[in-house]
Amino acid sequence: MTFIYAFDHKHRKSPMSLKDLLGGKGANLAEMMSVLHLPVPHGFTVTTDACRDYMHGGWPKSLDKEITLQVAALERKMKARLGDPSSPLLVSVRSGAKFSMPGMMDTVLNLGLNDKSVVGLARTTNDERFSYDSYRRFISMYGRIVLGIDGAKFEHPFDAAKKSAGVKSDADLPARALKGLCETYKQVVKAETGREFPQDPMKQLRGAIEAVFRSWNGARAIAYRVREKISHDLGTAVNVQAMVFGNRDNNSGTGVGFTRNAATGENKPYGDFLVNAQGEDVVAGIRNTETLDDLKRQFPAIHAELMTIFDRLERHYKDMCDTEFTIDQGKLWMLQTRVGKRTGAAALRMAVDMTKPTGSGKTAWKISKKDALMRVAAEHLDQVLHPQFANKSKAVTKGLAASPGAAVGAVYFTADDAAAAAGRGEAVILVRSETSPEDVHGMMVAKGILTARGGLVSHAAVVARGWGTPAIVGADSVHIDGKMFTVGDTVVREGDVISLDGTTGEVMIGAMTLAAAEPTKEFHTILKWADEIRKGKLAVRANADTDEDAAKAREYGAEGIGLCRTEHMFLAPDRLPVVRRMILASTPAEEAAALDELRKVQTEDFAALLRAMSGLPVTVRLLDPPLHEFLPSVDELEIKKATVGLTAEESKLMDAAHSWAEVNPMLGTRGVRLGVIKPGLYAMQVRALLAAADIVVSEGFSPIVEVMIPLTVTKEELALARSWVEQEILDHSKQLKPAAKFGAKNSVKNSVKNSVKNSVKKSKRPKVTIGTMIETPRAALVAGELAEISDFFSFGTNDLTQMTFGFSRDDVESRMMPAYLEAGLLKRNPFETIDQVGVGELVKIAAARGRKAKRGIKLGVCGEHGGDPESIGLFYRAGLDYVSCSPYRIPIARLAAAQAIIGGSKAETK
Amino acid sequence: MTFIYAFDHKHRKSPMSLKDLLGGKGANLAEMMSVLHLPVPHGFTVTTDACRDYMHGGWPKSLDKEITLQVAALERKMKARLGDPSSPLLVSVRSGAKFSMPGMMDTVLNLGLNDKSVVGLARTTNDERFSYDSYRRFISMYGRIVLGIDGAKFEHPFDAAKKSAGVKSDADLPARALKGLCETYKQVVKAETGREFPQDPMKQLRGAIEAVFRSWNGARAIAYRVREKISHDLGTAVNVQAMVFGNRDNNSGTGVGFTRNAATGENKPYGDFLVNAQGEDVVAGIRNTETLDDLKRQFPAIHAELMTIFDRLERHYKDMCDTEFTIDQGKLWMLQTRVGKRTGAAALRMAVDMTKPTGSGKTAWKISKKDALMRVAAEHLDQVLHPQFANKSKAVTKGLAASPGAAVGAVYFTADDAAAAAGRGEAVILVRSETSPEDVHGMMVAKGILTARGGLVSHAAVVARGWGTPAIVGADSVHIDGKMFTVGDTVVREGDVISLDGTTGEVMIGAMTLAAAEPTKEFHTILKWADEIRKGKLAVRANADTDEDAAKAREYGAEGIGLCRTEHMFLAPDRLPVVRRMILASTPAEEAAALDELRKVQTEDFAALLRAMSGLPVTVRLLDPPLHEFLPSVDELEIKKATVGLTAEESKLMDAAHSWAEVNPMLGTRGVRLGVIKPGLYAMQVRALLAAADIVVSEGFSPIVEVMIPLTVTKEELALARSWVEQEILDHSKQLKPAAKFGAKNSVKNSVKNSVKNSVKKSKRPKVTIGTMIETPRAALVAGELAEISDFFSFGTNDLTQMTFGFSRDDVESRMMPAYLEAGLLKRNPFETIDQVGVGELVKIAAARGRKAKRGIKLGVCGEHGGDPESIGLFYRAGLDYVSCSPYRIPIARLAAAQAIIGGSKAETK
Repeated sequence: MTFIYAFDHKHRKSPMSLKDLLGGKGANLAEMMSVLHLPVPHGFTVTTDACRDYMHGGWPKSLDKEITLQVAALERKMKARLGDPSSPLLVSVRSGAKFSMPGMMDTVLNLGLNDKSVVGLARTTNDERFSYDSYRRFISMYGRIVLGIDGAKFEHPFDAAKKSAGVKSDADLPARALKGLCETYKQVVKAETGREFPQDPMKQLRGAIEAVFRSWNGARAIAYRVREKISHDLGTAVNVQAMVFGNRDNNSGTGVGFTRNAATGENKPYGDFLVNAQGEDVVAGIRNTETLDDLKRQFPAIHAELMTIFDRLERHYKDMCDTEFTIDQGKLWMLQTRVGKRTGAAALRMAVDMTKPTGSGKTAWKISKKDALMRVAAEHLDQVLHPQFANKSKAVTKGLAASPGAAVGAVYFTADDAAAAAGRGEAVILVRSETSPEDVHGMMVAKGILTARGGLVSHAAVVARGWGTPAIVGADSVHIDGKMFTVGDTVVREGDVISLDGTTGEVMIGAMTLAAAEPTKEFHTILKWADEIRKGKLAVRANADTDEDAAKAREYGAEGIGLCRTEHMFLAPDRLPVVRRMILASTPAEEAAALDELRKVQTEDFAALLRAMSGLPVTVRLLDPPLHEFLPSVDELEIKKATVGLTAEESKLMDAAHSWAEVNPMLGTRGVRLGVIKPGLYAMQVRALLAAADIVVSEGFSPIVEVMIPLTVTKEELALARSWVEQEILDHSKQLKPAAKFGAKNSVKNSVKNSVKNSVKKSKRPKVTIGTMIETPRAALVAGELAEISDFFSFGTNDLTQMTFGFSRDDVESRMMPAYLEAGLLKRNPFETIDQVGVGELVKIAAARGRKAKRGIKLGVCGEHGGDPESIGLFYRAGLDYVSCSPYRIPIARLAAAQAIIGGSKAETK
Repeated sequence: MTFIYAFDHKHRKSPMSLKDLLGGKGANLAEMMSVLHLPVPHGFTVTTDACRDYMHGGWPKSLDKEITLQVAALERKMKARLGDPSSPLLVSVRSGAKFSMPGMMDTVLNLGLNDKSVVGLARTTNDERFSYDSYRRFISMYGRIVLGIDGAKFEHPFDAAKKSAGVKSDADLPARALKGLCETYKQVVKAETGREFPQDPMKQLRGAIEAVFRSWNGARAIAYRVREKISHDLGTAVNVQAMVFGNRDNNSGTGVGFTRNAATGENKPYGDFLVNAQGEDVVAGIRNTETLDDLKRQFPAIHAELMTIFDRLERHYKDMCDTEFTIDQGKLWMLQTRVGKRTGAAALRMAVDMTKPTGSGKTAWKISKKDALMRVAAEHLDQVLHPQFANKSKAVTKGLAASPGAAVGAVYFTADDAAAAAGRGEAVILVRSETSPEDVHGMMVAKGILTARGGLVSHAAVVARGWGTPAIVGADSVHIDGKMFTVGDTVVREGDVISLDGTTGEVMIGAMTLAAAEPTKEFHTILKWADEIRKGKLAVRANADTDEDAAKAREYGAEGIGLCRTEHMFLAPDRLPVVRRMILASTPAEEAAALDELRKVQTEDFAALLRAMSGLPVTVRLLDPPLHEFLPSVDELEIKKATVGLTAEESKLMDAAHSWAEVNPMLGTRGVRLGVIKPGLYAMQVRALLAAADIVVSEGFSPIVEVMIPLTVTKEELALARSWVEQEILDHSKQLKPAAKFGAKNSVKNSVKNSVKNSVKKSKRPKVTIGTMIETPRAALVAGELAEISDFFSFGTNDLTQMTFGFSRDDVESRMMPAYLEAGLLKRNPFETIDQVGVGELVKIAAARGRKAKRGIKLGVCGEHGGDPESIGLFYRAGLDYVSCSPYRIPIARLAAAQAIIGGSKAETK
């Protein structure tokens, strides 16, 4: 097995198609070097295969030999040798996984230096200071990362050296002092590890590669992958590359460049640049950076070369690229490129822009509308749907608008404090001088992030944009002092509330009012294109219980309501007492009276909903939750009883609460089982629904009603429930004049035949169909039988997931899911993204069996997965007709549906 | 579609193979008439098809025409006509479902009588009294059954007539009085229904047939079917048969005969007989009956004919038959036959006896051993395993030993009182003069039944035998008076405790001590034969947690332990405090100390178990239940806190109980999830198990250990859990001298290879294998993946059923199951007999995928279904290697396994 490929290796396929093997960085380096022939320093990639082998069985046997061969080849190309005192080669060792994990894994620079080669480097560069500074950096970096020595052990001597030399800036330390520091550092290594700092460059290299492999399973990296839903199995590649130096002199420098503006999408290159600096300085945001315009002014030829490279990259990748470049004594080197991350607004704008030709003549290029659709991810839409501020007080300061959206929260100054406050339920704004990977746990929970330093590609900016968290960076008038910050006269202490506008960079004191987002025009363009692909293939409905939700859903493009949960109507404060009367009823008459009261209010609720959704189907689920949810807590009443005593009413409620209490309510007297125990309840709901349909018909609206039976497990159960609904329809139609009769199906056997007849004869009447949820594993397995007496199925994937896994959301998801994801026991939270293997198979089985039994049966999904792009892909492939999700997820579902249809879900398999 | 067949119809197949269509009674009548040419009164059978059509869509259109044709044919054969004043034909109308439902459905006799034909009957029989008595009986029977009139409406005028005539016995009422009663009865009908009593015999017939159809869905019939697990869909056939009369004179009579003794199995005909009586008189037990010896004395020729018929029936059916016969003025008629119900001891004896030739020469017959095995049902074994009395005080009286076994309980005198007492948890003895179908709900819950009247084929006897409920009937010294009974001087009041020996017929005052049953020698013969079939094909193991259980299981033939639930070891009073210390531990050291204490006691437990099962596999399930099961109730502590306050210890317990409390514990932090949260727990259990194995090896025993991981849902979870176990095995083997090392598999990847090696190199060492339960739907679906790292699967069908249905046993099974079974929403309680369609499919899927991934994987089941015969059939067909059940079910499982192998489970599909 080959574990290593040089960047200039002639792969049989495009290196970009080998990201699984080479990692993203390695593939892009190979692409730039072997396909585009750009100026890339030579190097090689140790593949992810090697990393996976290492994780399973330790260091691969043949790897040392391959490294030796590849290093020899690299030395030939570079005409320099690792550790060579006369012509020393220095290399960087960087991680590069398939999916970018910025800052999550380890890097070692300047590798190859030792006591001999440092002398050679000083000679060949004629710069002793540079040479020992590089060696010092290398020893401390290697000490920290490969040998696991606490970084402070190196910082203390460094500070002491500066003090002793009487200088403040690192750059002012003389070569001699740096030379001394190298000795000190080597002693630190000896003291901490009991061994000498390795002088053999091959040993150094193996140690660094192994450290990168190990860092794949570092806590930070695991947390990041859980957050980003990346599989723990992939492993990372390792890129070993000849060093170039942006910090050699003032004719050197380093920068990060985007071929377009990653924040706005504007077709104008954007970048940060520092003279006489190393790449890490730019990304860490320690020094404030210069722009590409500054580069053009100072290095016009380099700038022109870079712009040409940008053009070539965009033409080649047909997308916005993000690059790292270094100027080493006047020579431009490309150190990295990749298709760049972008904000939601930028993603939309770029996708739409790129469907028109970029450039002209032979080199002009564009992408198709389908490509444009595939370029936009759920998170992008989510971001442009992010709330903005409705009105703002005057900004106290302004920083760089690093990640759009509005955020309000209490200020915390450390990641730990932020995490703790968020754990208490507070909305948190994390304020830091700059952020580093150690802050990720605080950044994850923050509503917004504010840093005093750093540019638009600083750690804080990149991470926040990726997550859609509003962020302002480089707000340099912000002075942080322990657990407070000042801006001019204003003092903001820990816990004080501020507001951030990540779209403009404005910081306001106090809580501004949030308003709904104002999507860009490209947002609408993309969704229009998505609908062109999607319509007639996969509909998108909303889960909505009120007319307000329904109106919002329609506005976002919902084509109906896939789930109206009627229990929400039961919990309103004016209804709960009536519901309790119904439960407590000791005679049929009392129960009937309470039901009749409920019927009246439910009729109004349903009418409002049907009105709002006129002309579109509305699926009403009959009451689902266990009755004890409508009763007070047994515990509280018991304590009251044991202390102050209960009223007669409370006593009755307690008895009822006891008698309806269940050990496992999730698997208890719910759904259609309630109907079996209290058939009057379901009958009442159907009566209310039919009456509501009458009302809105009389107002000129066109209601389309779908009655849904929850939690079915047997055909017999469904047939019984269906007969109740049909009886109500029959009774109802007898009461009405012929013109207002419903076109419902009166007999299970003849339902199909009748529905055809009815559609012809009674097309003006509201349609009522009857279906069931598929939310137990058994229902999925017996879907063929259920289909015979269902007009539609709606997959309740939340409950189906709970039962298929035996995971109670109330218990397992909060208690165990984080541990399970971190340990890799689950690749995804199956409540967010449908479990393709287990639950997904049940969905596919049920859809296939349902369709086999009744070809025209309508299939949909109303679990939360209905708004998850990857899950939508599975639903489309399973042959579903629609997905239903919360109103705010509808644009995402529309896009994801189109993407599923174009050819699989947007997300690559992580 | 043909809905009716005459008894002498020439079917293309044997009528007995048409029981689905003709019902049991109809099929047997046709068999006797058209195949055996026995003296059966002519008649015809309305098929179950007609009944099912009736249930779905009302009276079938073509049925009236068919009835007309069949009646005409019957009239021709009988040379008499329904309602004919000169030569009247009378018919009986009786239900006859596929499976016998004694007394559960309705019968109408003497149909065809009206105001004209009653005169004709008087003339042709020359017996006016008989004629009007028949008419009176017909009107009241028809009134009650077909027209739904309260029986009391007919009883009152009857009592008045007797009073007015000054007679006590029915038989003494003169013809004139009976004639008057007929008029009165017709007025009752008019008054109650508003319509005249139907004079048209065809109308009468249609009414009676419809009444029988309707009675299929009567409450009694439904309850019976639920109890007997008969599908509600089958429907009943209706048999219309020319009447013969056992009550014509003293040259007439009626009886019930068994070709062998149904209680003991002895090969000697047995029967009850009454001169000048109708069949119902015998069954109802109103008059005490005479024996077949009495018949021989009084009607020697008839007796000889009957004995010949018995021989022919046995030869034909190759089984013991149960018959009804009537002598009408000296002529023998067979009214019914069927393969008779029998006690467990009788079933065993008959099955074994019949493998030896019965009779001699050409007519000799016998059955094969396989046939014999198929003849014995689980209930039969259950009955002979029933406890007997260890010692008995002197019997206060003795009745007929109607159903074997010993019963102790409090006396109740009505079915309602018995049911109420049983509902309160009391053991109940139901004492009645005689029983009727209205008493069934009391009989169902009774531990034993005692009646003062009736014979061995009375309702009480038949029903009790069918259910294996000990019963004594015809104890005529028992005098019942309201809510007490007297026997001589002894008075027994409601609630007093008595003891019944159903095997001897003895009634004792007070509670006798129960002892284990003493199975008959045929019991052992049958099980030996079963094992000959079964061995090597489907093993039977026991679910056992203690060495006592294990010893009992071995005695019953268990071939290992399929499930040892270690939590039972945790709940012992001396361990619970240690378990709580482990849960409350605030430092790893505290937790480790508590675990170590538990390890010591668990080691002893495991050693005892391994000792008892030496040489046989013992599957130990690592801790499964949620931890809050080991903590006190939150509610109780909360109340205590609110009132008298908590100790510091209680306070800590309450905090822990709160933090471990779950909304749905069934779907919560259980099984391997516990292991993930507290890996020290599982490690401790494995350590204890390995130490226990050492101990018993050192004692010369041969432990075979199978470690089982519960509640797995992902391969990653199982791999992790497996690694814990393997680590313990590795650590353990390092501590031991080489000779005592375990042959366990140390690497997942190499497990198969290693196990082969190990079995060769280390055959003397205790074997440890590692497997998982398949008890979530997801585990079943991903069984292929799980098999790669499992040495065995054990299906936990209890939990699998809960999750597949979404039925919590704690909630749904008690609250809803009875209603669901009665309404036919479920055909069976899926916790008793595996749901073939849903859960069964998951078992089959998992078994197939498991075997595909690893051919040699061992498959078993340890849910309660492992002891259910019908479920065992499915497990065998799914390819499982063993079933595991409670020790007392092992004989049943051994038999059921053999039956499954012979060709499907014993039970026909009900």
